[in-house]
Amino acid sequence: MSKPIQTAIKPTREEDYPEWYQQVIKASDLAEKSVVRGCMVIKPWGYALWENIMRGMDAMFKATGVKNAYFPLFIPLSFLEKEAAHVEGFAKECAVVTHHRLEKGPSGGLVPAGALAEPLVVRPTSETIIGESFARWISSYRDLPVLINQWANVMRWEMRTRLFLRTAEFLWQEGHTAHETAQEAQEETLRMLGVYASFAEDFLAVPVIQGRKTESEKFPGADTTYAIEAMMQDRKALQAGTSHNLGQNFARAFDVKFLGRDNQLQHCWTTSWGVSTRLIGALIMAHSDDEGLVLPPRVAPTLAAIVPIFKTDEEKERVLAYCRELAGALCGAERLAAAEKRDAGRELLTVFTDEAACQKVVLDMREGRAVEKHYHWEQRGVPFRLEVGPRDVDKSAFVLKTRFDGSKTFHEKGCASPGWLREQADQVQARMLERARTFREENTVVVESYDEMKAALAQGGFVRCWFREDPEVEARIKEETKATVRVIPFEQPGGTGKCVVTSRETSEQAIFALAY
Amino acid sequence: MSKPIQTAIKPTREEDYPEWYQQVIKASDLAEKSVVRGCMVIKPWGYALWENIMRGMDAMFKATGVKNAYFPLFIPLSFLEKEAAHVEGFAKECAVVTHHRLEKGPSGGLVPAGALAEPLVVRPTSETIIGESFARWISSYRDLPVLINQWANVMRWEMRTRLFLRTAEFLWQEGHTAHETAQEAQEETLRMLGVYASFAEDFLAVPVIQGRKTESEKFPGADTTYAIEAMMQDRKALQAGTSHNLGQNFARAFDVKFLGRDNQLQHCWTTSWGVSTRLIGALIMAHSDDEGLVLPPRVAPTLAAIVPIFKTDEEKERVLAYCRELAGALCGAERLAAAEKRDAGRELLTVFTDEAACQKVVLDMREGRAVEKHYHWEQRGVPFRLEVGPRDVDKSAFVLKTRFDGSKTFHEKGCASPGWLREQADQVQARMLERARTFREENTVVVESYDEMKAALAQGGFVRCWFREDPEVEARIKEETKATVRVIPFEQPGGTGKCVVTSRETSEQAIFALAY
Repeated sequence: MSKPIQTAIKPTREEDYPEWYQQVIKASDLAEKSVVRGCMVIKPWGYALWENIMRGMDAMFKATGVKNAYFPLFIPLSFLEKEAAHVEGFAKECAVVTHHRLEKGPSGGLVPAGALAEPLVVRPTSETIIGESFARWISSYRDLPVLINQWANVMRWEMRTRLFLRTAEFLWQEGHTAHETAQEAQEETLRMLGVYASFAEDFLAVPVIQGRKTESEKFPGADTTYAIEAMMQDRKALQAGTSHNLGQNFARAFDVKFLGRDNQLQHCWTTSWGVSTRLIGALIMAHSDDEGLVLPPRVAPTLAAIVPIFKTDEEKERVLAYCRELAGALCGAERLAAAEKRDAGRELLTVFTDEAACQKVVLDMREGRAVEKHYHWEQRGVPFRLEVGPRDVDKSAFVLKTRFDGSKTFHEKGCASPGWLREQADQVQARMLERARTFREENTVVVESYDEMKAALAQGGFVRCWFREDPEVEARIKEETKATVRVIPFEQPGGTGKCVVTSRETSEQAIFALAY
Repeated sequence: MSKPIQTAIKPTREEDYPEWYQQVIKASDLAEKSVVRGCMVIKPWGYALWENIMRGMDAMFKATGVKNAYFPLFIPLSFLEKEAAHVEGFAKECAVVTHHRLEKGPSGGLVPAGALAEPLVVRPTSETIIGESFARWISSYRDLPVLINQWANVMRWEMRTRLFLRTAEFLWQEGHTAHETAQEAQEETLRMLGVYASFAEDFLAVPVIQGRKTESEKFPGADTTYAIEAMMQDRKALQAGTSHNLGQNFARAFDVKFLGRDNQLQHCWTTSWGVSTRLIGALIMAHSDDEGLVLPPRVAPTLAAIVPIFKTDEEKERVLAYCRELAGALCGAERLAAAEKRDAGRELLTVFTDEAACQKVVLDMREGRAVEKHYHWEQRGVPFRLEVGPRDVDKSAFVLKTRFDGSKTFHEKGCASPGWLREQADQVQARMLERARTFREENTVVVESYDEMKAALAQGGFVRCWFREDPEVEARIKEETKATVRVIPFEQPGGTGKCVVTSRETSEQAIFALAY
């Protein structure tokens, strides 16, 4: 049962981080590249993770009063053109539908036919098509605020793709809201950024820095873009979510007007905000190790796997009966009974731990060596494995292996209960967040000159310094170091200092880093 | 408080059923046509209904061992061409992506650029792209069965569209499974048809007939298609879900092979099955009336609306306090407390009745006349309204109005509890199903000659008769009556009879009807 000297994932993080990332995804069976350029297939384990992310976040949205809706996949080309900065930002990566049927071509194969009068763009984001709806929905201040969210697929024709981090098609949510005043729009923009930050920390155990993007990094068409930034284990930054104050830009482009309390017709103030399947990339890179995926308990589709160990038929019978009891103790007798009925004859007994069937304990009764099963669950990042052999049965005990830290602890069977399992999960969740936060802090330096900055960036990690925002200076830094301003953090020391590059006085510090 | 003599929905069902349908959707705010040809916008009330449908059905799928995944939106043209019948069936309605960016054209506007070497089709269904994955995932009988489902948007370029019933883009789920034997594939095909039938009856209160489609009505590429058929209030049929046994057709086209127990390499047997947002059309047309939408309690996003009635400020305070107590009694004190906190200052107090936040009781504190609030909730199909005026407070009572039958009953406040509300909901749910079933039975006739059939079809409803399957005969019947074979029902009388059209001996009866 001792681990092989080699790591399960080759290469290791140390040896080749980008390749390690691909191999973790492969070994954990989360997703794969498809034959369609730049598009991925999200496999059942990856999709179950996404379902848990959606479920958790959706409840947080709804708690703020947001409602879900659904808008068309296709956007008329003329709509995109209505907001100049917006179309400029997306024109280079649009999938364009030009025909609406197929017919036999001269060589016998099918060719596109039925040319459209106006080409349709597969949505890269939906500000424009939703703006058109808002214009019809809103006529008075009484109709405001409108708080809408959409869970959808979007398409951006990326040239260099990487699973979850950058794909042509990805799944996401996009919130779109309309407000009566600039202040309300700003409050909404920051409220949703706060929801993202809480979700990243509480569900994904990924600590994030909230802040504002510089002008050169903002969303095409926004007045201001805010983001949450996380540090990966290679000390690069990953933008994990963005929230945009769109001012009146899209309201003007789509004529979204309302009669105000002052009886004047005026444009709404709108926001949009989104997170995507990229969050899965973030949690992989923040937590996983050279043995494979490590999932935060709160979003793990399988919280624990019970692995029976036996040699003889007599042992098998005894151990399996005991494991069933353990599953019942962890999930409740009723849930075990439902599972036994449903999974009769199957090799995996799946017992749900909650009403919504989003998390489960699995009893792994497959044929095969116990050590193979260990690796199976380990590589997939399942937070806990409970190992039970004949001697554990005799002692009325079990071994708990924790994926996150590789620890192995002994427990009496009597302690197993839904509350105990929840407590183990909560502890691991808190420790994962703490470990990631410590890592980030250990890899963040404050610098006082451009030379120090360059030296620090060469080492990797976050570099914090006084910085006077200036697109030209940012461009120069990017060219010389490959680093960008990740955010101007909300948390500032106060007072002023001298910009490390230009020595101009500034009241803001910025975070620089190499980024995904 | 008396109802206006005119109906809320104009025209009535009697006067103009298709137009009534559009007006119910408008009045209930479920969805609207978008500016994008044939695509709809699903508004928050409609999407919340779809969420409840997804949630209920998804749990049923998972209970059979099915897992969710996600596959690319785009299908290479060459993939569609691999299965001859399949491409034949979909070529006329494919949205085709031919370019991957936009650039300035000669006249200054943007035009498609970056022509693709191979056009991509926006998925009308995913047998082909998923077949390609299955070919990579499956190599041995040990890998089988593979049971996959996808919740997704699909696109079929329909020329004549109607909200929910037939739109170019629609939301659906598509199940795709692969099996070792023909028998297992057949069992899966029928199992999922059974899931659809249970869902339609138990959740939507829409009784359905399960049966086989004739050759001329089957899915392009299937060996056999099965369907559930429901009767709408205009006595036309609506196909509410289909399940296809694909035989080895797609396995051959995509080379999905496995090494069998006999050590021979062989093709898998596959199935696919789907339901869509069309289910919303089905439940609207099965239950709604001339006052608006009528929702089955089990899928209604809002189960009950509490409407306070008051004139003076003193009354207002007293009535609102009492309504809050009522909401707490119906949903539980903890849920009320959470809602009070979240909705502080809002005009609607939304108290969830379940863990997953999929159903709620709403306390409507908006300004405005009580009668307007009644119509608001009535037109949206909310199953129950609780009316509370000052005299109800004095008597410690409330009036319960049931949307389904318009009944008005008096209750003591003490009876209000989560269990009581659930019981009311279950009763209405059962009665809605029963009413729809009775309606269908009253509008189904058995005929013994083609003349009788024609006369019966002219009256509307389902016509049941002995029928010997024959595409030419079906075509003739369709031309002469516009009716089609909806299904060869599983429930058959046994024995044989003479086909009503050709007088040939047959062991099967068919259901004919005009259909959506």
